[in-house]
Amino acid sequence: MNAEALTPPPMPGDAAALIADMGAQARIAAKRLAQTPTADKAAGLVAAAAAIRARASEILAANADDMAAGRTNGLSGAMLDRLRLDEGRLAAIADAIDAVAALPNPAGTEIDRVTRPNGLMMSRVRVPLGVIGIIYESRPNVTADAAALGLMSGNAVILRGGSEAVNSNRAIHAAFAAGLVEARLPADAVQLVPTQDRAAVGAMLRAQGLIDIIIPRGGKGLVARVQDEARVPVLAHLDGVNHLYIDADADPAKAAELAVNAKMRRTGVCGATETILIDRAYPAPLGIIDALVAAGCEVRGDGAIATLSPHVEAASTGDWDTEYLDAIVSIAMVDGLKGALAHIDAHSSRHTDAIVTEDISAAERFLSEVDSAIVMHNASTQFADGGEFGLGAEIGIATGRLHARGPVALEGLTTYKWLVRGSGQTRP
Amino acid sequence: MNAEALTPPPMPGDAAALIADMGAQARIAAKRLAQTPTADKAAGLVAAAAAIRARASEILAANADDMAAGRTNGLSGAMLDRLRLDEGRLAAIADAIDAVAALPNPAGTEIDRVTRPNGLMMSRVRVPLGVIGIIYESRPNVTADAAALGLMSGNAVILRGGSEAVNSNRAIHAAFAAGLVEARLPADAVQLVPTQDRAAVGAMLRAQGLIDIIIPRGGKGLVARVQDEARVPVLAHLDGVNHLYIDADADPAKAAELAVNAKMRRTGVCGATETILIDRAYPAPLGIIDALVAAGCEVRGDGAIATLSPHVEAASTGDWDTEYLDAIVSIAMVDGLKGALAHIDAHSSRHTDAIVTEDISAAERFLSEVDSAIVMHNASTQFADGGEFGLGAEIGIATGRLHARGPVALEGLTTYKWLVRGSGQTRP
Repeated sequence: MNAEALTPPPMPGDAAALIADMGAQARIAAKRLAQTPTADKAAGLVAAAAAIRARASEILAANADDMAAGRTNGLSGAMLDRLRLDEGRLAAIADAIDAVAALPNPAGTEIDRVTRPNGLMMSRVRVPLGVIGIIYESRPNVTADAAALGLMSGNAVILRGGSEAVNSNRAIHAAFAAGLVEARLPADAVQLVPTQDRAAVGAMLRAQGLIDIIIPRGGKGLVARVQDEARVPVLAHLDGVNHLYIDADADPAKAAELAVNAKMRRTGVCGATETILIDRAYPAPLGIIDALVAAGCEVRGDGAIATLSPHVEAASTGDWDTEYLDAIVSIAMVDGLKGALAHIDAHSSRHTDAIVTEDISAAERFLSEVDSAIVMHNASTQFADGGEFGLGAEIGIATGRLHARGPVALEGLTTYKWLVRGSGQTRP
Repeated sequence: MNAEALTPPPMPGDAAALIADMGAQARIAAKRLAQTPTADKAAGLVAAAAAIRARASEILAANADDMAAGRTNGLSGAMLDRLRLDEGRLAAIADAIDAVAALPNPAGTEIDRVTRPNGLMMSRVRVPLGVIGIIYESRPNVTADAAALGLMSGNAVILRGGSEAVNSNRAIHAAFAAGLVEARLPADAVQLVPTQDRAAVGAMLRAQGLIDIIIPRGGKGLVARVQDEARVPVLAHLDGVNHLYIDADADPAKAAELAVNAKMRRTGVCGATETILIDRAYPAPLGIIDALVAAGCEVRGDGAIATLSPHVEAASTGDWDTEYLDAIVSIAMVDGLKGALAHIDAHSSRHTDAIVTEDISAAERFLSEVDSAIVMHNASTQFADGGEFGLGAEIGIATGRLHARGPVALEGLTTYKWLVRGSGQTRP
C-alpha cells in the first residue's frame, strides 16, 4: 500500500503553508519544552518507548507494507536492509529511546561564569536550539532517534523521512506522539511532515525563522541538495573518506587486525576506512594485504603495493577520493608520517583518520596535525559513532567546522545564552 | 584621492580567481598558524601593534584622504565619525591588539575527556576554524581588531573593508602585516582584498572550501546581502531591538538611571535600548519619561504612556520593531512580567533584553524565559560588548543560534576536534 497514492500531491504553495503551520506549532511546543524539567522530558521518552513496544505489531505491519513496496520498486538489497524492521530491531529502537531518557541533560547547565570588577556576574547557560528539521532517508529508526534526542535537549522536531519508509515512519511517529501525550507533553514537540511531496523539503530548507537548524541524514544526493538550497543553517554529514595510516613503528599484529576491522567490520558505515596508507619503512606490508584479502576485501593499490601481491589491482586516480562503502580498499605506500599527512591533507573528507604506531611522538604529531573531526591512535575508525563516544544515540557525525563537529548528540542540539546579573550598574 | 580610480574594476571572473588565490595562500598560512605556539602568535601581535604606532603618521594621512573623499561624497556625520581616526583612536587600536596578545588562548585547550570501558580515551581539543572572511564597513579599527582576534586564535583572515575606508584600511593592514613578518609569522595570515569591486564580496560568499566562515560587520543592507548570497557559513550580527522592562518592584532611582544609560549613553551602538516596557503596577512611570526627556531623548509612547506627559508622541505600530540607533525611545505599558515577556517575544531581535526589579523570582523568571543572546537583570543593555564581558576585543555580537551567540571573541573563532587514544582496540 502506497500512502502517497491516496491524496493528490500538494502544490508548492501548499507545502510552504504546511511547513509554516507546522513551524508555528513547533515553536509553541519548543517554548514549552524549554521550560519543562528534565525529569518530565525523560518521562515522556519512557512513555514513547513503551508506546512503541505496545504497538509493535502495527509498526511491523506498516514496515511490511514498505518492504513490499520497496521490492516492487526495485530497491537494492542494501536499501531494503536499512528499511527492514523486525522484533529485535524494533526493541532496539525502543531501548535507544530509554537510553536517551537516562542521559545527563546539557540543557539548563551553566557553561561558565565570571564576576567582573564592576560587580556584574556574567554566565553562559545552555539552552535548546529551538526547532530542528530532520530530513532523512530509508532508516525508520531515525524517526525515533531524532525525536528522542531533540525532545530530551528541549527542542521541537519536524521530521521528514523518505518515501520508501513512509508507513514505518508514520507508525513509529504515531506511537511516539501518543507516548508524549500520555506523559502530558505537547504532541507538536515531534511532528512528521504528512506529505512525501518534495516541495515540502524545499519549504523546510527555506523556513528561516520557523526552523532553526536542518540536519540531513542520508546519501550524498540528499546532503548536496540540502546544502545547496538551504537558507536555514545546516549541520551536515558528508562523506567518510577515512584513512588508516600504518607507521614504520606499528605493531604488525595490531596493524593487520585494525586494518581488517576498520575496513571490513561493517563496510556500509561512514566510519569505515576507505584508504590504508603504509609507511615505506613498515616491515610487513604484505601481512596487511593478505589479511584484507583473506577477509574478502578487494584491494586496489598504487605501484609499490601492486608489486607485493597478485591479489592487488591497480588503483586509479579516483580511488584516492572514493568512499566505497563496500568491501574494497585502496592502499598507498607513503614516505613516513610526512607522506601520510600530505596524502590525508589532499584526500581526507575530514571525518575520521587514524594512525597505527607504537611511537608516541609520531602518534601525537598525527593527532595534532590531522585536521579531521575525529583523529585516532591505535584504534579502529569504526569507533566513529556517538554511542562509542559515550554520547548515547547520535543524530549524525558533523563534518563541517561550525557549531558541532564529529558525533552530534544532546549537547550539539543546544546553544547558550548569556545571563548578566547586576545591582543597577550603568555603563560609564 | 580615490584609490579605486587608479585601476579599472576587475571582471567577476577575476574576482573569483583573486579570492581563490587569496584563499589558497590563507590556507597555507592557517596550517602554519594552527601549529604555532601561543607565545609566538602573541609576539606577532605585539610587533603588529608596534608597527601601527610607528606608522601613525602614514595611517593618519591615509585616513585624512578617506575623510576628504567622504566629505566630497556626502557621507553622513555619523559615518564620518565612524571613519575618522586621530592619534587617540589610533593608539587605542594598537592598545587593543596588545590586549588581545595578553588574552588566554582557547586554541589547543582540552574541553573534556572521558575514558570508555574498552580503554579508549576520547577528548575534545579546541582548534582554529581555519580561514575567516570578514566583510565590513566604515570603521577602520575592524581591520586591526579582526586581524588580531583571528591570528591569536590561530586563523588566517581575509579582510574586505568598505570603499569609504580604503586608504585607512590599507595603511593599517600594511603596518599589521609588516609586524607579522618582523615576528617571522606568515604575512598571508592577514590579507586585505585589494579591490573594492563588489564582485570580490560575491566571490568570498561563494568560496566554499576556501573560506570556512564569513563574519559580516556593518549595516542591515550588508548583513542581509551576506545572509542571502552566502554559501559559506555566516556568523551574523543582526539588529539590536533591545528592551528594558521596568517591573512593579523596580527601585525607582535605579530604574530611571538605567533607562537613561541604556538608551542614551551611546545611541548608535547595537546594545542601546530601543523600547522600554513599564509594568502598569510600577509606581513612578513619569519619572522614567521625565528623565529621558531631560536627557534629550524623544519619547514615543502607547496610549497609556502618552496620557502621562505632554512630551510623549504617539508611537505607531512600526515603532515596536524599530532599531532607532538615535535619541528616540518607544515606551509601552504592559501587564506585569507576563505582558513584558509577550511583548519581548513578539518584538525583540533577540540581541539583549533586560529587567529592572528588586524581586529576585521575577528576575530569574525573566532570565530563564527571555530567549535572547544576552539577558540582563538590573544592568544597562549598553554592557552588551565583548570587552565588558571580559572577552577582550570582540569580533561582533552574534544574534543567530548556532556556533556562537552573543559577544564573539577568541573562543567563537575556534572549533574542536575529537582525539581518540587507544592501544589497538577493534570494534566488536
